[in-house]
Amino acid sequence: MPIFDKVRELAIIQSSAAVLDWDQETYLPHHATQYRADQLAWLAARAHELATSNAWKNDLEFAETTTQNSEPILAANLKELRREFDRATKLPLELVTRDSMACSLAKHSWADARKRSDFSSFAPHLEKLLEIAREKAELWGYDSEPYDALLDGYERATSTTAVADLFDAMRPALRDISSQAVEKSSAQRSCLPLGPYPIAAQQKFNAQVAEAIGFNFQAGRIDTTTHPFCATLGPRDVRLTNRYLESDFTSSLSGVLHEAGHGLYEQGLPVSDFGLPSGKPVSLGIHESQSRLWENHVGRSRSFWEKWYPVAQEIFPQLTNFSLQSFLNHLWRAEFSPIRVEADEATYDLHILLRFDLERRMMNGTLSVPDVPHAWNEGFRELFGFNPPDDRHGCLQDIHWSMGGMGYFATYTLGNINSAQLFAAAKRDSVVAAAIEQADYAPLLAWLTKSVHSHGATMDPTELIRHATGNVPSTDDYLAHLKSRYN
Amino acid sequence: MPIFDKVRELAIIQSSAAVLDWDQETYLPHHATQYRADQLAWLAARAHELATSNAWKNDLEFAETTTQNSEPILAANLKELRREFDRATKLPLELVTRDSMACSLAKHSWADARKRSDFSSFAPHLEKLLEIAREKAELWGYDSEPYDALLDGYERATSTTAVADLFDAMRPALRDISSQAVEKSSAQRSCLPLGPYPIAAQQKFNAQVAEAIGFNFQAGRIDTTTHPFCATLGPRDVRLTNRYLESDFTSSLSGVLHEAGHGLYEQGLPVSDFGLPSGKPVSLGIHESQSRLWENHVGRSRSFWEKWYPVAQEIFPQLTNFSLQSFLNHLWRAEFSPIRVEADEATYDLHILLRFDLERRMMNGTLSVPDVPHAWNEGFRELFGFNPPDDRHGCLQDIHWSMGGMGYFATYTLGNINSAQLFAAAKRDSVVAAAIEQADYAPLLAWLTKSVHSHGATMDPTELIRHATGNVPSTDDYLAHLKSRYN
Repeated sequence: MPIFDKVRELAIIQSSAAVLDWDQETYLPHHATQYRADQLAWLAARAHELATSNAWKNDLEFAETTTQNSEPILAANLKELRREFDRATKLPLELVTRDSMACSLAKHSWADARKRSDFSSFAPHLEKLLEIAREKAELWGYDSEPYDALLDGYERATSTTAVADLFDAMRPALRDISSQAVEKSSAQRSCLPLGPYPIAAQQKFNAQVAEAIGFNFQAGRIDTTTHPFCATLGPRDVRLTNRYLESDFTSSLSGVLHEAGHGLYEQGLPVSDFGLPSGKPVSLGIHESQSRLWENHVGRSRSFWEKWYPVAQEIFPQLTNFSLQSFLNHLWRAEFSPIRVEADEATYDLHILLRFDLERRMMNGTLSVPDVPHAWNEGFRELFGFNPPDDRHGCLQDIHWSMGGMGYFATYTLGNINSAQLFAAAKRDSVVAAAIEQADYAPLLAWLTKSVHSHGATMDPTELIRHATGNVPSTDDYLAHLKSRYN
Repeated sequence: MPIFDKVRELAIIQSSAAVLDWDQETYLPHHATQYRADQLAWLAARAHELATSNAWKNDLEFAETTTQNSEPILAANLKELRREFDRATKLPLELVTRDSMACSLAKHSWADARKRSDFSSFAPHLEKLLEIAREKAELWGYDSEPYDALLDGYERATSTTAVADLFDAMRPALRDISSQAVEKSSAQRSCLPLGPYPIAAQQKFNAQVAEAIGFNFQAGRIDTTTHPFCATLGPRDVRLTNRYLESDFTSSLSGVLHEAGHGLYEQGLPVSDFGLPSGKPVSLGIHESQSRLWENHVGRSRSFWEKWYPVAQEIFPQLTNFSLQSFLNHLWRAEFSPIRVEADEATYDLHILLRFDLERRMMNGTLSVPDVPHAWNEGFRELFGFNPPDDRHGCLQDIHWSMGGMGYFATYTLGNINSAQLFAAAKRDSVVAAAIEQADYAPLLAWLTKSVHSHGATMDPTELIRHATGNVPSTDDYLAHLKSRYN
């Protein structure tokens, strides 16, 4: 079908750009950044040109009129291609250019403002980006409120109200759990034996673990970066990156389990459909469910460490006299801290609830940009019981707004919720559950591949959850997981 | 000027492909090769489309008619762009496709034939590639013989006769020098102390040396591959690669000096002209002169090691009681061996003379493909005094013919000749010469940048040599160098 040839060509362009992006984050020499931006801009322009062309539109229309609904995968592919095409073409080129320039300036301003903890210098940029976000929302269209249109870019077919309902339902429980967890953790403070944990040894251990949970190193690798990520450079080419603390090997191990979780999703997608919706991850909230599942449900479990702690003790001799229980207490520590990216399982979602609420109010016009720091601090104090020391540790800490990424944060907590619901459903299969107790994850991975990965983006995220777990998305399993972990 | 915008766009496409190529040689996961080929094919098609388009032709013609010859750089750029355009457009697409498919098949066949030392299975492929090479030569046109047209693709404005004259002039001397060198070397056999020379330590030492001779790690890096190379991924992005023997650190050091020589040339080109002829290396023979100069004239000199041998002794304790003279004897060892890529300075060019002669006869139709093994062995015995043990160590050893690279080999020896002529000319500057004696190479690099690098491809190679050295290309300095090294 001609439209699929074009979709595959687009995947070639975008995955080529992914190679250049990955290289930029891993190995690019310092002085080469400007030209790399030129190379990436050229590829982005070719991708945009193709995906918004009349030829694309005509081929898509032709496919739509000639396709029977009796072919569900084909129909799902065309439906998603239509959604993407409409989203891409509803924005005039002028707005796309203005947006990208505004983001470019805002990112510089944000980095500088954060360094100096000076919100006022960033405020005009946030103001402009908010205006653009509202313009985009109007052009894309929405059912109830403009935030819907942004959310749809990350988590399709989900409404702001639905997300708010989930978040509201868990808020009180989350506050209780987090308070208890922090209290308990401070009573059982457990300090990991002193490092150094040599980086080369960490890398070896991490690779061994990643391979054991099913990551295929014939179709992927791990490199080093400042900010860990997972990038797909081709249908059999999934690159994880990681960073290392010599003082604590569990930091890079959590990192690799998280990124390998993303990577296993990418490696589980149908290779022959690479670039088509049926060969793509469906949403950020589902992607994050995979990373969180392996990072937290597997990688912080007692059964996982019953197998792997003796291996770690072999590699890192300073662990010899440190008991498994002390080690788990270290892994399960919880504390209230102002920075999201350093937050533990027990407190992480409080950070998201705050951001979601503020973003939604900004988009609805009930929170003005100059009032953001005050609203942030007030919301933070209510959830965490103290004020952030300054805006650098408050409303300036995240890069997302400066990248025009409003609507993104919610998907982190959706990922947490989904991870628990999927893990609980997987364990209802007795073979999967028994294997997990032995730290054998092949049946779990097979279950995830069958229930999640193999479907690509042929179902909406909520439909996929219902299909995989038999239930609508709910916070029950997640709250139960947190309660059992922190009790 | 519009044509220059197009040239810069072409450079963006080609350098993006260079990133994907480099990644393929360094880090690409095993199962990702097929898709990488698809990505590279897409980029190659875009580059070809642009560089042979009517718009390109029209812009070039417009520039040619409006440009005054009083602007020499501009005129040189247009002249070279015209030459490249004519070469690219003289071949019909059908021939280009047939060529690329034939090469693809031939490469597989060659790898297999070499493994089994079975020339007859490769012969039909070589036959076909030879036919295509002749077709191409006819379409490109030539002055005296078809080989001219091939040579012109690697070493512009050089004739087969001119190369043959140089080679013929040095043949008798080269045979004497090599025989004496091999004899002397076998009398003074010096064995490097046993390894292991740890790879991490080699890498540290190599990087220290590369930086000391002027390689800029802010605009380049060194990675590991099976076959060392130097690739330019952008105007400030030069990637060297290297391989390591744990038994002999001088192997990787020679490798890094060779590739850094290429890299210093690339880093010395005018950054603002990236992609234009004035920002490009002029020819393979000049490129190789830079790698050979740093590898052999600098990196195998006594003054270089008077500075660096004590450093090496610090890093590799087994060298402690091995004298500098013994070490130099190890570096200067010479022997007759059948494999070109393992050959030393004293015998290397004999391998090239043989290949050049055979290629020329094949192109002229005086040597038929089935007779190649016999002709190879005969020519080899005449130069080296013994028969290669089999075709694997004979006419099947090099990848070049299977890649359609007929005409390429000559540039290796041109590089050797040029390196000596340039090094001798540089040393006629007393500041350069005095610094070299102290193993300070900043003045030498400045001289090379001024005399060679900064000119890009605005002069023909022979013109560049005359301009830089004051003399026409000649083998005098090269033979004098070999004589002095091996006497």
